[in-house]
Amino acid sequence: MWQIYQFPLCPFSRKIRLLMGEKGIAYDLVREDPWTPSEMFPNLNAAGTTPVVVNEEKKLVLADSRAIGEYFEETVDNSPMINGTAANRAEIRRLVALFDENFYHDVTGPLLMERMKKRIVYKQPPNSTVLRDAMKNAHGHLDYMDWLIDNRPWLAGSTMSLADLAAAAQISVADYLGGIDWKGHEQTRGWYSVFKSRPSFRPLLSERMDVIKPPAHYALVDG
Amino acid sequence: MWQIYQFPLCPFSRKIRLLMGEKGIAYDLVREDPWTPSEMFPNLNAAGTTPVVVNEEKKLVLADSRAIGEYFEETVDNSPMINGTAANRAEIRRLVALFDENFYHDVTGPLLMERMKKRIVYKQPPNSTVLRDAMKNAHGHLDYMDWLIDNRPWLAGSTMSLADLAAAAQISVADYLGGIDWKGHEQTRGWYSVFKSRPSFRPLLSERMDVIKPPAHYALVDG
Repeated sequence: MWQIYQFPLCPFSRKIRLLMGEKGIAYDLVREDPWTPSEMFPNLNAAGTTPVVVNEEKKLVLADSRAIGEYFEETVDNSPMINGTAANRAEIRRLVALFDENFYHDVTGPLLMERMKKRIVYKQPPNSTVLRDAMKNAHGHLDYMDWLIDNRPWLAGSTMSLADLAAAAQISVADYLGGIDWKGHEQTRGWYSVFKSRPSFRPLLSERMDVIKPPAHYALVDG
Repeated sequence: MWQIYQFPLCPFSRKIRLLMGEKGIAYDLVREDPWTPSEMFPNLNAAGTTPVVVNEEKKLVLADSRAIGEYFEETVDNSPMINGTAANRAEIRRLVALFDENFYHDVTGPLLMERMKKRIVYKQPPNSTVLRDAMKNAHGHLDYMDWLIDNRPWLAGSTMSLADLAAAAQISVADYLGGIDWKGHEQTRGWYSVFKSRPSFRPLLSERMDVIKPPAHYALVDG
């Protein structure tokens, strides 16, 4: 059995949970908050990041969400998520990096700092300027997604791919933290609404992170 | 013919140049400074990062250094650099991420800000506290590399891999900027010295970045 070390609002763990859900790979969750790591966690991942995926029977410890994604893509054939020609696969991976790095840096990361870590770890109020900038940055990223969806059925091309899962993971965390204003983004909103109804997504949407409450629309398919 | 959009001290471009060098793929360099992007650069890469790799004959534009690495690994068979079992490949990719993300965040990124961008872009002196912290962080990463090399012939296992290229790329930039103190790191120093003598590495070591001079030992194989 696979175990995922994660916390409920980790967007990189959500990407891997969506991937494992789509591929039908069962897993148990182990709660791990990187800001107060358990004693053994640094031995599992020198980088100190979640998710870490462990399989005791296979004696495997996998770290780094992109390395984990490639591993499941290589070892589990059903529901391929890094698919097509080498150029198609490069486009999928480019977009995964864009969401993992740029969207996270511009939107999800600042929201997690202001609305989660400051509340739970530092006992401080959020900085409203940082929150406003993160929401403004989100509009820029959603504009780019609207443009992609105007031109392709899915973000990276003709089929659902890891790029869609990476984007949905980041957006779901940003939306939980009240950072997404959907006005003017009908294309991406439609794409996300389809996503929210998938069986792989339902368990994530029903989870809550400690004292932090999501907005009313968060878990609604047409929200 | 391939073109690489890059600047001489971009560690991610260096990783791709080392990979293309090892695989024997010819390329031309196009200078691109992400802090003053050329007019067309945002059209090549929405993320705004170097390297971008272009092939006009193939009508291909590839962005994100890990996506580019996977592309060349999939399309050029010689000198495999993401090799072995799925678990071996996951270990290679975990280490590539550790150098691309953690080493860059802790060491190369701060050094580039203080010793390159502040000099060239902002016309400010470096912050000595940040420099000291980056050099201290470098010791921590080199300790981890010493430990890996004590246990394996190459960083990720029994053969040279993209993990070694990613590490050498980051270290070469940090070393150019005077951020590496080799004392107490004989294992990693020996590994790096072997690397510096490789034909793929020589062109990088002979380049200079504008007004910034590297230390005397920088380009010496036993330096």
